[in-house]
Parts: sequence; structure tokens; C-alpha cells
Amino acid sequence: MTGKGLMISVSGPSGVGKGTIINEVRKLFPECKHSISVTTRAPRGEEQDGVEYYFRTKEEFEKLLSEGEILEYDKYVDNYYGTPATPLIEKSNNGFDVLLDITIAGSLALKKKFPQAVTVFILPPSFAQLEERLKGRGTESEELVAKRLAKAREEVLSAEKFDYVVVNDDLQTAVDSIVSIMKAEKLKYDRQSGIEKTL
Amino acid sequence: MTGKGLMISVSGPSGVGKGTIINEVRKLFPECKHSISVTTRAPRGEEQDGVEYYFRTKEEFEKLLSEGEILEYDKYVDNYYGTPATPLIEKSNNGFDVLLDITIAGSLALKKKFPQAVTVFILPPSFAQLEERLKGRGTESEELVAKRLAKAREEVLSAEKFDYVVVNDDLQTAVDSIVSIMKAEKLKYDRQSGIEKTL
Repeated sequence: MTGKGLMISVSGPSGVGKGTIINEVRKLFPECKHSISVTTRAPRGEEQDGVEYYFRTKEEFEKLLSEGEILEYDKYVDNYYGTPATPLIEKSNNGFDVLLDITIAGSLALKKKFPQAVTVFILPPSFAQLEERLKGRGTESEELVAKRLAKAREEVLSAEKFDYVVVNDDLQTAVDSIVSIMKAEKLKYDRQSGIEKTL
Repeated sequence: MTGKGLMISVSGPSGVGKGTIINEVRKLFPECKHSISVTTRAPRGEEQDGVEYYFRTKEEFEKLLSEGEILEYDKYVDNYYGTPATPLIEKSNNGFDVLLDITIAGSLALKKKFPQAVTVFILPPSFAQLEERLKGRGTESEELVAKRLAKAREEVLSAEKFDYVVVNDDLQTAVDSIVSIMKAEKLKYDRQSGIEKTL
């Protein structure tokens, strides 16, 4: 794996604060790449293929899907949005680190396809606090909050399939944890293989 | 491994600056335990068994040695000094982290006995710089420096058997690297197994 960039994904249930953590980590690793999604919707304005999105036809997307090239996908208003695998491995092979903000299923698919990828699960400090955060958004009905909570209780059971688990009790501590994981992973012998012969 | 402390060892060739790094890390993790050596020399002054050293007879030491209980040892002025394995696992089982300043062979023996232990190899930025550092001590003859260098060239080839490799180019960066490794290792799912069921 020498000379290759780190592929790291961060996932967690809705309301856990994953987006905020990832934004803060990105500020500290500005050279770290993110993944570009594939979509079947048409480009808007100045959007360019391979910059904002990879623009593909529905048929092309479905072919990628059947080839196992799409780690995770969703469909909105009749258009697909998916995370493609190949650009990740290309970035990594070119020495770039890639930080992925993807779903739990997406992380598991990533790890299956690329065992060298590092997966992180963000847990809430407690379900009571997760409920408070979801209610605190003020944008969702009580029913929707209850639904999200039930889903979160199910989702956290996937934590055992991840490499690392970070509890988001305090934002700065959680950010520092992800930073430590990234630094440590880059220090693994397997990621610096042969370094002792270059001294 | 849930609830168990981390066992981490740091090794490297003579002159690489391992001792200084470990001292700085200890300041940041004052609750982290170190290993207590077993010796066959007699206690001096107020020295207590299990505090400064474990005091054992030569026969007892040789029995421990034959049982594979001694990870590494040396003999000075007819007395043995060794690193015993069992107290490490006891500390770890009681939830304490243990940071070991041991030889390369000691780290390899530790990893063999306790696969969950984490081993770190400190490399010099280059052999030219290692030579300068060894000469800079001003305490060793040119011949001894040459001997140490030749040994270091051999020793670094063991780096591939370690979990992590840290290049000691800059002290603060090297210390930060060890700190990141310790933090990240404690965040591994396997070290927090079942945490998702306690929320």
C-alpha cells in the first residue's frame, strides 16, 4: 500500500452530528479529497462532468450498479445519485487521501471492496441525547423524530462491523479523534512498507 | 478486549531518541503505567518488591525465563534484568494503559505473546543523521559509533514486523504521532466492543 493515499469513511445515524465533524476535519486536512457522486440528472449551468458530478445516463448508471461499481445510491425525483468506487481507488493510487461522508451501508460496501479502507462509526453519547438533538432541529414532526430514533437504534448495531467507533459527546474531541485515526493509520507499517530501506 | 487497557511498546536503534520521545509522551499520559523489571540483584535502601523492581533469586529468574515469562533480558555485573509478561496483562486487564520502553526483540516477544499489544518502531530520518546524533553525544569513540551504526542498519530491517513506524525527524511531531497512535488504538471497535449496546 506504500505511497497510496488513505481511504477513510465516516458514517452514523441521522442527527449524530457527522456532517459537522467532517466539515471540521476537512478544514484541518484541506488537501484531503472527497468523493464525487454519479448522477443521472442533467448538468445545470456551468456544472462539469467529473467536477460537481459524473453525469451518466440511466442506462449507464444501471450498468455501473450491476457491476458492483456503485457503493451506495439513492433515487430522488426519478434520478439516481450514487458513490462510485473506481475514482476512489484512482485518487488513492495517486497518493491522495480521500475522506468519504457516506451511509452506513456505503461504508460496509467500501470496506468489502477495499479492505485497506478505514471505516469510522459515529455514535451518539446516548439515545436520549440523540432524541434531543433531533427535536432541537425543530424541523421534524414528533412522528418523524420517533421514526429516526427507531432507525438509529437499529443502525448502531452495525458499529461492530466498523474499524473505529467515535462517540460524539463533544465536537472538538470527536474531531480530534478522527484526526488521530487518520494520522495513526498513515503511520502503519503496511502504509509505509519499505521505508526502512530508504534511509 | 473491552474495558482493557492498551499495551504499547516503543523500540528503535540506539541514538534514535526513543527515550526522549517516551518521556514526553508520559507527561501527556501521566496515568499510563510502565513496566517493572525483574532483577536478581539485591534491593538497595528503601527499594520494595513490585515497586522499583520485582526482586527474585537467580533460580527463580531462570525458571521464569524457561517458562517464556521474560520478554527480554540482559545481564549486568552477574545480575539479570528482565521484562516480565504477566504484570503487563494484569495491568491491562485492570483497565490501565501500559507504555513499554523496550528493545526491538522485546517488542517482538510482546507481540507474539499478546497479539493485541501495539508495537511502534522509531526510525531515524537517515543514517547520516543517526551518525551525527551518536557523535553528538560526545561520549563514545569513533569505533563504538561505527559499531552502533552497523547494528542500527541491521536493526531497522525489523521495522516491518512492527505495527507502526514513526520517523523521528522532529521531536514534537514524533511525540504527536505516538499520541495519535494511542488515541486511535483506543478508538478501535475491538477495544470498545459492545459500546453500541450501552447507549
